[in-house]
Amino acid sequence: MTLHSELNQQTAVHISAAGGPEVLVPQQVAIPTCGPDDVLIEVAVAGVNRHDVNQRRRGPDAVHSPIPGLEVSGVIVVTGANVTGLRPGERVCALVNGGGYAQFVAAHQGQVLPVPAGMTMADAAALPEALFTLWHNFFDVAGLVEGECVLIHGGTSGVGSIAIQVLTAMGFTVYATCGTDEKCEIAERLGAKSAFNYRKGPFEQAVLAQTGNRGVDVILDMAGVEYGHQNVAALAPRGRIVHLSPGHGAELSIPLRDLMRKEGVVTGSLLRPLSDDEKGRIGARLLTMVWPLLGTRVRPLIAARYALADAHLAHACLEAGDVAGKILLDVVAADC
Amino acid sequence: MTLHSELNQQTAVHISAAGGPEVLVPQQVAIPTCGPDDVLIEVAVAGVNRHDVNQRRRGPDAVHSPIPGLEVSGVIVVTGANVTGLRPGERVCALVNGGGYAQFVAAHQGQVLPVPAGMTMADAAALPEALFTLWHNFFDVAGLVEGECVLIHGGTSGVGSIAIQVLTAMGFTVYATCGTDEKCEIAERLGAKSAFNYRKGPFEQAVLAQTGNRGVDVILDMAGVEYGHQNVAALAPRGRIVHLSPGHGAELSIPLRDLMRKEGVVTGSLLRPLSDDEKGRIGARLLTMVWPLLGTRVRPLIAARYALADAHLAHACLEAGDVAGKILLDVVAADC
Repeated sequence: MTLHSELNQQTAVHISAAGGPEVLVPQQVAIPTCGPDDVLIEVAVAGVNRHDVNQRRRGPDAVHSPIPGLEVSGVIVVTGANVTGLRPGERVCALVNGGGYAQFVAAHQGQVLPVPAGMTMADAAALPEALFTLWHNFFDVAGLVEGECVLIHGGTSGVGSIAIQVLTAMGFTVYATCGTDEKCEIAERLGAKSAFNYRKGPFEQAVLAQTGNRGVDVILDMAGVEYGHQNVAALAPRGRIVHLSPGHGAELSIPLRDLMRKEGVVTGSLLRPLSDDEKGRIGARLLTMVWPLLGTRVRPLIAARYALADAHLAHACLEAGDVAGKILLDVVAADC
Repeated sequence: MTLHSELNQQTAVHISAAGGPEVLVPQQVAIPTCGPDDVLIEVAVAGVNRHDVNQRRRGPDAVHSPIPGLEVSGVIVVTGANVTGLRPGERVCALVNGGGYAQFVAAHQGQVLPVPAGMTMADAAALPEALFTLWHNFFDVAGLVEGECVLIHGGTSGVGSIAIQVLTAMGFTVYATCGTDEKCEIAERLGAKSAFNYRKGPFEQAVLAQTGNRGVDVILDMAGVEYGHQNVAALAPRGRIVHLSPGHGAELSIPLRDLMRKEGVVTGSLLRPLSDDEKGRIGARLLTMVWPLLGTRVRPLIAARYALADAHLAHACLEAGDVAGKILLDVVAADC
């Protein structure tokens, strides 16, 4: 642990300008300070998310850290004065508010969870964003209850591939959409009852055929404003459509009469602006409800791994869109 | 009671063709049969609703009764074999599935409620559609809970004028929009904390100003697809927008990012397609929760009354849009 050596400097990947993957540049910067409610984590592996790509395209701004990255795994090196139940040396994964593409990052204690038994640091880095997102959206926002069935768009995305496994392990019936037949096969191997290739035809007809014309109770949508009509058509009475992606600020067009006839709900959320308290409540629920499933019934699907300095390759890979599962950045060289 | 006289004939107003108010024509038709779960009501007063106007414009179809009318008051003359707790001679009001513009109409027992103490037949005829609608949408669909505040578009409409009174009597803070300053004054006299003239400027700014920039928890919208953006802007975090009017089948355009940021909900319902069981559950809740308020804290606002044979004048009046409150048809001549 080298926290106080080299004048507290670390390597972190910066968004140097708005642009393509090439604007991601490793720099030497100060190790972040650890607030009273935070832990400082020496990062082993960082997760790459669509959010990071969108942030890079927009470029640096006054609000966000110039270092992207919303989730990491690693080892706690410092704990803040108010931190309880976490100690230096513990292997953890964490949701962070930017700053993950770095050797060190500070995380609020409520968003730090243990590396699950039987999982590597790489597995653990693929968990926080997907698990916080799926829990909040399915249970807090959509109010999913026992006996209901769901449709997940992007079944082999980072969120989708974990969500299929967690929800099937919890006993829910899960359908998915994917962009290739190969990804559909993967989604079904992960537990989806059926996966539909949306490039081959309207998924809503397949969903209705599979559900005895009833539709699904909850749809998790990462496709922005693409599926306004198709989602409503695939929805069961009193079903909920939950949006994870704002679709670059575009308008969502909804067939109002069809929505009303079903008493359907259109909603969504942004994970990042939630308060630390709210994220802490989600983390506590995850620890109780999902952690026991991890490493046995649920294991992240890792699509590709790059060295931290090759973050630009990781972004290019994500933007190409032809991989299934999570893309990771190895911050320490060893596969730990 | 003349049920068996004149070969079981009665006078009812028919939609003779798609068109303006002039297509409403009184005819002699058979008195409807009373099913085992129904009561037959000799109608005193029938309520006129926007739905009736839309049905008239579309013209006769295979699905709906050619006799419009969704609510009546009157006296029970026959009860079906399965009916319990209702007896011939009782003064009641009822939600009916068409057929209200007539001397006799059959109503499912679960949608029949007593004329509240201290109310006339005219008052009672103004209740069912408004009360079933507001209860279902605010409590079942929107999940309104204690401490929340609401915005009602169309504060002096049949539904709006009752909803303001019922919700304020139940302790909720109510805001309203209306189309004239005069209607705004009426809405405030009915109990609204503030009413905003939507013709004078964007109501969402007034709502935000009145609520310390927080917005309202539930919006009841009868304006179809008109206010997609303004409603989201006026919404509090985790607020719900509930649509009562499908806006002639048009698309509703929603600013998705703004909705997600608030975790807002867009939803709605159609009262008419609900099952008899569902309507019965709403009726039972109304009897417990709202009936005690009627005649004292809540009294319908009657805009105009016409004879049954002048139903065309009632429709013309509703379509002109310059009255506040409910329009009624007197089926019996006496003001009972």
